[in-house]
Amino acid sequence: MAQQHLEPTDASAGAVTADALAGYLRAQATEFLRALRQHRENGGAAAGGSEASVDAARALRRSSRRISASLHTFRPLLDPDWSERIRPELAWLSGTLALEHAYEARLERLLLALHRLSGAMVPTQVDVVAGSRAAGAAPGPQKTAPANAASGNPGTPAPDRGNLTVGAAKAGALLDRQLTLARTRAHSTALQALGSSRFHAVADNIAVLASEVPLSQTAATTPLPPLAAAAEDRLNDAITALPLVTAGHPYNAEALIHGLSPDPSPHPQDAPWHQVRLLLRLHRYAREVLQDAEIVDVRLLTAGEALDRHRDASEAAAAAAQAARTPRIAPATAYALGVLHADQRHEVEAARFAFQQAWQKETVSTP
Amino acid sequence: MAQQHLEPTDASAGAVTADALAGYLRAQATEFLRALRQHRENGGAAAGGSEASVDAARALRRSSRRISASLHTFRPLLDPDWSERIRPELAWLSGTLALEHAYEARLERLLLALHRLSGAMVPTQVDVVAGSRAAGAAPGPQKTAPANAASGNPGTPAPDRGNLTVGAAKAGALLDRQLTLARTRAHSTALQALGSSRFHAVADNIAVLASEVPLSQTAATTPLPPLAAAAEDRLNDAITALPLVTAGHPYNAEALIHGLSPDPSPHPQDAPWHQVRLLLRLHRYAREVLQDAEIVDVRLLTAGEALDRHRDASEAAAAAAQAARTPRIAPATAYALGVLHADQRHEVEAARFAFQQAWQKETVSTP
Repeated sequence: MAQQHLEPTDASAGAVTADALAGYLRAQATEFLRALRQHRENGGAAAGGSEASVDAARALRRSSRRISASLHTFRPLLDPDWSERIRPELAWLSGTLALEHAYEARLERLLLALHRLSGAMVPTQVDVVAGSRAAGAAPGPQKTAPANAASGNPGTPAPDRGNLTVGAAKAGALLDRQLTLARTRAHSTALQALGSSRFHAVADNIAVLASEVPLSQTAATTPLPPLAAAAEDRLNDAITALPLVTAGHPYNAEALIHGLSPDPSPHPQDAPWHQVRLLLRLHRYAREVLQDAEIVDVRLLTAGEALDRHRDASEAAAAAAQAARTPRIAPATAYALGVLHADQRHEVEAARFAFQQAWQKETVSTP
Repeated sequence: MAQQHLEPTDASAGAVTADALAGYLRAQATEFLRALRQHRENGGAAAGGSEASVDAARALRRSSRRISASLHTFRPLLDPDWSERIRPELAWLSGTLALEHAYEARLERLLLALHRLSGAMVPTQVDVVAGSRAAGAAPGPQKTAPANAASGNPGTPAPDRGNLTVGAAKAGALLDRQLTLARTRAHSTALQALGSSRFHAVADNIAVLASEVPLSQTAATTPLPPLAAAAEDRLNDAITALPLVTAGHPYNAEALIHGLSPDPSPHPQDAPWHQVRLLLRLHRYAREVLQDAEIVDVRLLTAGEALDRHRDASEAAAAAAQAARTPRIAPATAYALGVLHADQRHEVEAARFAFQQAWQKETVSTP
């Protein structure tokens, strides 16, 4: 493979080319195949799965996202036919694999919030924070809630519902039922996907990628940095369009506007933030390809975490609102779900504030 | 009346004595009698009353609070028997007169919040903010909600409920019913109070106060500033005990803890803030007596406003939670009340943050 060695000390002048990209893609493809093998060896078939199989699924998603992102950002360097064919397949795969974990995390987030809102300690907090006080004051021994134990997910240390109030307890049980069902379905779908001919075609493609990256004819002479810079520009443009002035004012009460709107769709105000989250990830992966990532950028990490939290809270709030539409629930249950929804929408607002703070910090510290 | 003229240029050395207090109390008593006359002339009997009678009731409360506070702060200067007898009567009077207005303001706050949460514009906001956009986009003409017009309170410009969602509309109607009933009862109670022999005894006492202040035997030699300073110390001590570090962290999620607690009593965490609100008022009135108040203290104003907002939001949140306990309400109504409760608890948290910011500002700017 041809390499440019015009100015080896100046990465931005074009020294980083197809070689770096090919190396990165091969490494990610190898990681993908390793994770796939691990997943098969560790019995991914059991609902919830073992810890090793959960790790393997996460690693599969992780490498799928990175390969897909690199094909997108560095498009001109790759065989266009192959690249256009494999990208939607990788998106399908990582999307399918992500759902089960998303439902599990959402349920855990909502149950933790219900505990917090009930003034009830969760078991770990009882142990760590309250200590002997809880031992005297707790109405009963801390144990895993029966409903959760019965759902057949021994791997999930879901918070105790034993000392929730009636409304909160019923809301928790309803969310547990609905999200556990969704999670079980997502698990089956993921298993079906991993056994499908569609997936085997993806795996075959990744196996090829692990040994030889299908580059375009102009790859050798196309420098990577301008393409990575374009990804960063798209991120910065999207951030500029965010309502950061409002987000920087604590308690702006923006996230709960339309909290009682009849519109059943997720809050449209969240969409630009979700978009920035994806663009931030593309930027981060492009830095990995260019090996800029060896310098850990705390700003990117903090900002990315805030946007993850934003997404999680947004979806948890929607799940609470959705559960409140279940027919024939008790008013106390609906009330608890309303409080929970508003709580998560304020988490959304808090996450935007955290993002604004993290991002502003960078702007200030850069000369 | 004996006066000290030891050091006329140094107020803190004792030059401000009984004379200043007597002058202040006479002025407040005169104001009380003027407001009482105005209230009777403007037909305070009608529910809701005319604007002039509402103003008169406010002025009555205003002077009652100031007289009562001064008797408390400068106790050693006043005839103890008289002072101990009149203070609880003034507290009874201002408390009784305050209730009607409190219910009215609470309802308005909750209906405004419901509109905000529904993404619906309130009439005034439509006029001022949205302008022509609202004229094209509004689903129907802005009008006063029928339920409110029927409650016989033409003086209340309550927000329109025409374009609320079903749950929010029902929650609004429920709150309107409950708080209008409470307000009507408070109005009757206030009218009964103003016609009672108990009130006439208070008015007689205030009439005496307007001409001659019953001072204690040691009044002439007791300087005011140390007593005012003691009131300020009590305020500062109470503020020091507040969780201001937490309050200064935006989105600390502290105010909604116990939001789903089974305890029907108001949040105990609010009590120290309510206490500071009262102590801040005592401090402000003591400054008025010493005529320090001629220098407008923006910090005291801002901090006081934050604590008023804290109290209002706290009570509005409790009213929403209370309404949710109404038997046989629809789940959608209960859900809307849950969202509303959480929204007002976040207002509580926002008010604490605002107080912390205002108070910290002073600490920093003082050398």
